Amino acid sequence: MATAANASLTNAAQTSLIKPWPVNTWYVACTPAEIDGKPLGRQICGERMVFFRNGEGKVAALEDFCPHRGAPLSLGFIENGALVCGYHGLAMGCNGRTVGMPGQRVGGFPPIRTFPVIERYGFIWVWPGDAEAADPAKLRHLEWAESDEWAYGGGLYHVACDYRLMIDNLMDLTHETYVHAGSIGQKEIDEAPVKTRIEGDEIVTSRFMDGIIAPPFWQMALRGAGLPDQQLVDRWQICRFSLPSSVLIEVGVALAGNGGYHADDSQKASSTVVDFMTPETTTSHWYFWGMARRFAVADAALTDTIREGQGKIFGEDMEILQLQQRNLDLYPDRKLLLLNIDAGGVRSRKMIDQAIAAEQAEVAAAGQVLAPAE
Amino acid sequence: MATAANASLTNAAQTSLIKPWPVNTWYVACTPAEIDGKPLGRQICGERMVFFRNGEGKVAALEDFCPHRGAPLSLGFIENGALVCGYHGLAMGCNGRTVGMPGQRVGGFPPIRTFPVIERYGFIWVWPGDAEAADPAKLRHLEWAESDEWAYGGGLYHVACDYRLMIDNLMDLTHETYVHAGSIGQKEIDEAPVKTRIEGDEIVTSRFMDGIIAPPFWQMALRGAGLPDQQLVDRWQICRFSLPSSVLIEVGVALAGNGGYHADDSQKASSTVVDFMTPETTTSHWYFWGMARRFAVADAALTDTIREGQGKIFGEDMEILQLQQRNLDLYPDRKLLLLNIDAGGVRSRKMIDQAIAAEQAEVAAAGQVLAPAE
Amino acid sequence: MATAANASLTNAAQTSLIKPWPVNTWYVACTPAEIDGKPLGRQICGERMVFFRNGEGKVAALEDFCPHRGAPLSLGFIENGALVCGYHGLAMGCNGRTVGMPGQRVGGFPPIRTFPVIERYGFIWVWPGDAEAADPAKLRHLEWAESDEWAYGGGLYHVACDYRLMIDNLMDLTHETYVHAGSIGQKEIDEAPVKTRIEGDEIVTSRFMDGIIAPPFWQMALRGAGLPDQQLVDRWQICRFSLPSSVLIEVGVALAGNGGYHADDSQKASSTVVDFMTPETTTSHWYFWGMARRFAVADAALTDTIREGQGKIFGEDMEILQLQQRNLDLYPDRKLLLLNIDAGGVRSRKMIDQAIAAEQAEVAAAGQVLAPAE
Repeated sequence: MATAANASLTNAAQTSLIKPWPVNTWYVACTPAEIDGKPLGRQICGERMVFFRNGEGKVAALEDFCPHRGAPLSLGFIENGALVCGYHGLAMGCNGRTVGMPGQRVGGFPPIRTFPVIERYGFIWVWPGDAEAADPAKLRHLEWAESDEWAYGGGLYHVACDYRLMIDNLMDLTHETYVHAGSIGQKEIDEAPVKTRIEGDEIVTSRFMDGIIAPPFWQMALRGAGLPDQQLVDRWQICRFSLPSSVLIEVGVALAGNGGYHADDSQKASSTVVDFMTPETTTSHWYFWGMARRFAVADAALTDTIREGQGKIFGEDMEILQLQQRNLDLYPDRKLLLLNIDAGGVRSRKMIDQAIAAEQAEVAAAGQVLAPAE
Repeated sequence: MATAANASLTNAAQTSLIKPWPVNTWYVACTPAEIDGKPLGRQICGERMVFFRNGEGKVAALEDFCPHRGAPLSLGFIENGALVCGYHGLAMGCNGRTVGMPGQRVGGFPPIRTFPVIERYGFIWVWPGDAEAADPAKLRHLEWAESDEWAYGGGLYHVACDYRLMIDNLMDLTHETYVHAGSIGQKEIDEAPVKTRIEGDEIVTSRFMDGIIAPPFWQMALRGAGLPDQQLVDRWQICRFSLPSSVLIEVGVALAGNGGYHADDSQKASSTVVDFMTPETTTSHWYFWGMARRFAVADAALTDTIREGQGKIFGEDMEILQLQQRNLDLYPDRKLLLLNIDAGGVRSRKMIDQAIAAEQAEVAAAGQVLAPAE
Repeated sequence: MATAANASLTNAAQTSLIKPWPVNTWYVACTPAEIDGKPLGRQICGERMVFFRNGEGKVAALEDFCPHRGAPLSLGFIENGALVCGYHGLAMGCNGRTVGMPGQRVGGFPPIRTFPVIERYGFIWVWPGDAEAADPAKLRHLEWAESDEWAYGGGLYHVACDYRLMIDNLMDLTHETYVHAGSIGQKEIDEAPVKTRIEGDEIVTSRFMDGIIAPPFWQMALRGAGLPDQQLVDRWQICRFSLPSSVLIEVGVALAGNGGYHADDSQKASSTVVDFMTPETTTSHWYFWGMARRFAVADAALTDTIREGQGKIFGEDMEILQLQQRNLDLYPDRKLLLLNIDAGGVRSRKMIDQAIAAEQAEVAAAGQVLAPAE
């Protein structure tokens, strides 16, 4: 059915001076729970940042560097809405300006860099590039995060590989047959053809498998949805990549012969796998994963069961991707195959490359650098 | 009260070729207990050394490198007053010359480098520079280490930061309010002004707090001295830096209104915090810490209690300094603020820089290098 | 008796571009048990390889890199005699060509590198260099591995040092007195002179000690052989190095006065210590060690006892060699002594250097590189 492509790419691009991610865009930085009552230090797109919530509940992101003696501000604590350095008590405000320090006049203290942030959809989002260009309207709408018709649960992994290897992974679910043989994998996945297309600003890869036995994870989901778990089902996977680095995957099974993806809610268990990959370094990223579902939305125990199941599955991905990264590091100039099943990842990477090139062109045109002068 | 200084310094100097420590001077190398019956390998000022005690009880410091096959001599054992290599039995004498080896004539074996050592004041001291210039008279006198009127207890930490960050730390006790909130910190510290002055060959920073409540550590000390622990006290901290890298801090509390620092011994609990920082590499050092006290000197249990309390406190410093070092490494060119509270550290570093410059000038004048030719 | 040589060598050669091992030769890669039903990933002579047994029981060695997306093939599994990649199911054959992949025509897939292998003498052997030149006849004959008159037991250690330091170690057993004082070491070893000679393609170092008390390991062996363990014995050690990196050591004790090495089997416990050092990197190797013996060959419990004893002894070597390597890394230009006891290692290294030079000369003459073009 499919033919092997002759196209190829090298890994050498990874080591170029231009970082392999756009910066004038919104990335998931953390969840509100991670900054509950205390600051959080996290490196994002190569920048060490500290996140905290001030007295009025507003979230701020700053360089994680105290202007006094260079200690990480994230070791400190919140007092009167300011972030107090844990070394000598310098109190830093949301705007990167020192608001006080015992026995000191702080008016002349140099400001530290701030990063625009938005709190929305259950996440804190950060804009690591040019603060002037930050635009909340550029944050994609996430229907499932706001509607009562959806339930959501998820987690966070630190993964020691280029975030684009995770995008490749999520845009080619063929790997489920091999990496997740005991949960969501089944032979029919890699026997079913995939189609990849561009849909607006999304890259979409889809695969449909009709009249098959549901694998263990989906049998669990069918039971959770109050449906029989041993009947034949129609299964679907529709992977949607969008910039800068999210892959939302519509997945589900419907009792066979009811229309599959288009079946009535009463005949199916369907959900959206949520994946936000936030680069940390060129060879590591923060992986925010989860599942938004439209069945049994009030069942908190089911949310926990699904989270636990997903956590195991994504742990399997993490393991193989980290070893893939290590192997690619050892063979930096080796060309890889680009098969039809790889088209989703290839097109997603091309979209990322175009975004980076556009940013570089803007910078060149403006004759300025993205980072503020110090 | 105080004003923010505009002066600044960069961290880039740390990476220069000239090492950031003087070498023609005495550093604490180890304690006698560490070489009790066995050799000790330790890197000091970038040099890997082995310390051992020979048959007559004399301590020697040598390069930690067996001239036969390069094994570390510190893996060996002491026999007949020589240090025997644990690999093939080469026996090394205190003077860096091989004294024997089974089946070998050793007269022609090349010598290895020796380092001058002194055992005094409860420590082994080493001179890592030009052995010809080593002068025991240059070792500072330590009154508390020889007098029966004092008791001493202490410990050793390996700290992964530039030894000068520890000097900064000890010459600005403002940090106690933040880093040691549960033991010796109290709000009054960073509210009291500090004064920094040069006193002979010492940099002295002092702070006095009158009529305050003693913090937990000092309440413990007051009880140890047989004094009430809930009365108001006058508290003092007088930090004395001297070359190459010691900070001795006179600390204490007196029942309020009795003259504070000058109060009669019966009305106060006072002691000297002892800190010797011996560089290992440019980003790590050996931290010999302790406390010498003039109250309840026969109370060995109190010595242990104080040692345990100090150990916890200095563990808190170690944690923050190591993270500060990591942050400075990430921002090598960032300028730091130099406030009035930093004056003690700034002047101490200046004294160190002058000592290094003087050594360099001597070397240039003599047209020779410090390390012996091989 | 012996005199100290003035000759010397530097460690700097270790860091040259030419790798310090010949490649057109057979190295022990693994044991059959290590590839029982599953693939094994192992780096040998700088090459990452995967070893597996196909449907007909033939062993193959391939580059450990899936041509599809670069995952290590060693993470996969064996199915229908092919090595199936654990990421997306590419099935790789023994010949480095893809034999199948779900939904793909694989005829045009690029092959990956294969390495010649032989299974013989209880080991899998690999030829890491020019596959065209691989010749099974070049594998040395190992009598003890094929004869029923011998029993064999052994193990494998990963050692973080240049494999040549292990050769030095094994060609100079003087170290037993110091490193293995509690098992096979005894003072008489370093008091007995050694003789080193070339015997065909072997470097041979021998030492004989007559009328001594057997050390603990040999007392155990004497009991295993049904002989008294407290009588005086004649002991011998004959170390034989051969290319590329094996040291076989004839060792044993005979009841004193019966001819020593030449005594009748009924009067002695003798065996061959087997050591194959397979380079991993320039500073690490795989150490296959064992003992082949001609006494009590049917006693499996004795085989286990000896293996346990050897494992402890070689663990002591491993510890000191790793620290020696670390020390040599710190002093890359330091000259070492070459004494008479070092002659075995020195001559063995010279033989290795000649083999490397001969390979380089062949390559230069042929105007080609050893690795196949990609």
